[in-house]
Amino acid sequence: MDKLTVLVIDDEHLIALLVETALVEAGFAVVVEHDVASGIARIETLGPRLSALVTDIRIGSGSGWDVARHARGVTHDLPVVYMSADSVREWAIRGVPESVMIQKPFAVAQIVAAVTTLLNSCRPLV
Amino acid sequence: MDKLTVLVIDDEHLIALLVETALVEAGFAVVVEHDVASGIARIETLGPRLSALVTDIRIGSGSGWDVARHARGVTHDLPVVYMSADSVREWAIRGVPESVMIQKPFAVAQIVAAVTTLLNSCRPLV
Amino acid sequence: MDKLTVLVIDDEHLIALLVETALVEAGFAVVVEHDVASGIARIETLGPRLSALVTDIRIGSGSGWDVARHARGVTHDLPVVYMSADSVREWAIRGVPESVMIQKPFAVAQIVAAVTTLLNSCRPLV
Amino acid sequence: MDKLTVLVIDDEHLIALLVETALVEAGFAVVVEHDVASGIARIETLGPRLSALVTDIRIGSGSGWDVARHARGVTHDLPVVYMSADSVREWAIRGVPESVMIQKPFAVAQIVAAVTTLLNSCRPLV
Amino acid sequence: MDKLTVLVIDDEHLIALLVETALVEAGFAVVVEHDVASGIARIETLGPRLSALVTDIRIGSGSGWDVARHARGVTHDLPVVYMSADSVREWAIRGVPESVMIQKPFAVAQIVAAVTTLLNSCRPLV
Amino acid sequence: MDKLTVLVIDDEHLIALLVETALVEAGFAVVVEHDVASGIARIETLGPRLSALVTDIRIGSGSGWDVARHARGVTHDLPVVYMSADSVREWAIRGVPESVMIQKPFAVAQIVAAVTTLLNSCRPLV
Repeated sequence: MDKLTVLVIDDEHLIALLVETALVEAGFAVVVEHDVASGIARIETLGPRLSALVTDIRIGSGSGWDVARHARGVTHDLPVVYMSADSVREWAIRGVPESVMIQKPFAVAQIVAAVTTLLNSCRPLV
Repeated sequence: MDKLTVLVIDDEHLIALLVETALVEAGFAVVVEHDVASGIARIETLGPRLSALVTDIRIGSGSGWDVARHARGVTHDLPVVYMSADSVREWAIRGVPESVMIQKPFAVAQIVAAVTTLLNSCRPLV
Repeated sequence: MDKLTVLVIDDEHLIALLVETALVEAGFAVVVEHDVASGIARIETLGPRLSALVTDIRIGSGSGWDVARHARGVTHDLPVVYMSADSVREWAIRGVPESVMIQKPFAVAQIVAAVTTLLNSCRPLV
Repeated sequence: MDKLTVLVIDDEHLIALLVETALVEAGFAVVVEHDVASGIARIETLGPRLSALVTDIRIGSGSGWDVARHARGVTHDLPVVYMSADSVREWAIRGVPESVMIQKPFAVAQIVAAVTTLLNSCRPLV
Repeated sequence: MDKLTVLVIDDEHLIALLVETALVEAGFAVVVEHDVASGIARIETLGPRLSALVTDIRIGSGSGWDVARHARGVTHDLPVVYMSADSVREWAIRGVPESVMIQKPFAVAQIVAAVTTLLNSCRPLV
Repeated sequence: MDKLTVLVIDDEHLIALLVETALVEAGFAVVVEHDVASGIARIETLGPRLSALVTDIRIGSGSGWDVARHARGVTHDLPVVYMSADSVREWAIRGVPESVMIQKPFAVAQIVAAVTTLLNSCRPLV
């Protein structure tokens, strides 16, 4: 069975590694990027083969809000999970619909739960 | 008992009137605007006294997406309901979290259901 | 603005009339049928112009379970609301996914709430 | 078709009347009480014929929290809707599970939406 | 503490093994069958000791749709999770209510999330 | 990254250990207590640093219902998960809102799913 690919973007390498490890154990293939430009390039390259996006908000001088909007432009029903320490309140203004905002610090199982719940709720009615 | 105020923005006067009438029968006070500038002015004037926003997407040369973001900047947990005929697919990219997109044409009871459901789900835990 | 069409099927004419009246007041166009054959014919005729189905379970010698399956074959994401006095327990076995079962007797506002909630939850992500 | 009975308890007679009127228009039979003792007596008398409870929190010297617990002791899956101006924050501590807290002031359609949504979500799986 | 038993049915032995391993790590006892007849025999034997069903759709010449209906006939509130590569669209017509359809390929954590979420949402109100 | 702290209270040491192990693997810091007095003392000591409560119901001569109410008095939006073999039916009367009741026996993944789902659903809108 092929694996579903999740893109994780965080400029804190340790957090990216923790999330990557948990998602790999959960059965996903994981691609990690540490800046916005590389993240967007990955989204373009993967196209519909990208199954979910997990992104930090403050990524160097860039913004996870923009990455998520870009990714939704490529895949309309892409599950999006944001992670943030100090931008949580902006989610109500800058987040995309049907996304999950997870406050840092978090337990990695929260990321896995958010990704799998969003994937499972994509109702195959249409 | 005071009434909760809902702001309805649509440049199609007939639709604005239908929605206004249904919300008034549902027990709300309703303020109607027909363009983006007046809508934003109302949001500023009402501040925390605004209880919900129901907005069209294409409003003259303006955009309901911008109005909703502006309103969420004023009130973080404001219930937002979008109505649109041809911009429905953009919701996944440009909508705010915890909002409802209703495709035109619709039945007015859908608007009342969306507003009351969002108001009732603002969990008073914090 | 055009109206969304709801098909109501019940061989108890009084209940069909109560439901029809409530849905019309809610802003829907309503078509009523009193037997399975006419119901299925309506579903075929309306095709994608049918926006929701509200059906009794025991309809003469026919079954609302079959009508709902037939309707979902025509429109995959059609909102389906069942009404029943004594077949409620069969819903877990014979109902379709993402449907609502309402026990008779009920208040008509329950039917309107079920139809509008299902319509509003058809997420326009794809 | 018989009507479902909702018990409304509020010592503010005007609010009780507004809620009663809205629920009657929604298709319910409504019983109104203005103090805790009468409310509990009604719950005892109605037993399983009670379909939902809508209660204020501060009712004279009594408490809607106690009324709701009492009612759930009689009917385990009874839909419970609380209305309150200044006790909203206590809901997280003193409310019952699967209930809805509605902040005063409210629009009457919020009460109807809460009652019908709770009734419709009683899944007939068991 | 006794273990809850999940029945996994898939004629692809590798997928059955992956799902079994993940569910065992999650704390479940798992029974695996590779054809419909054995699956139904297990459901009969286990009766109320079966806590959840995870089933493929095309199982040899048989169908997971029939297995699930059979299982719900034995236990009305049984959590049901379907897995399928090419029958996903039929779920809206042939699935049972309150079930989850997971598209193949998937990550095993999606199966665990679906089973645990369905188990946890069986509200002990009645 | 700091860890979120979960308090687990159960007088059955084996069950407490199973739950602790699963939550630690999920990425949480876990504190275990075996009686009500110690549990309440921990809640007082931890204050807002407590991120979730997982509690048995019958704990010696004490009650998990009281512990949860106490904890919600300290942190209004604290995720609460109850575990019980024979007090499940009382949840509708004595549980707190937005909590999860998990019937014993359970799979440990159900506890992790309940805690992470409650944490992720604390919407950062306000």
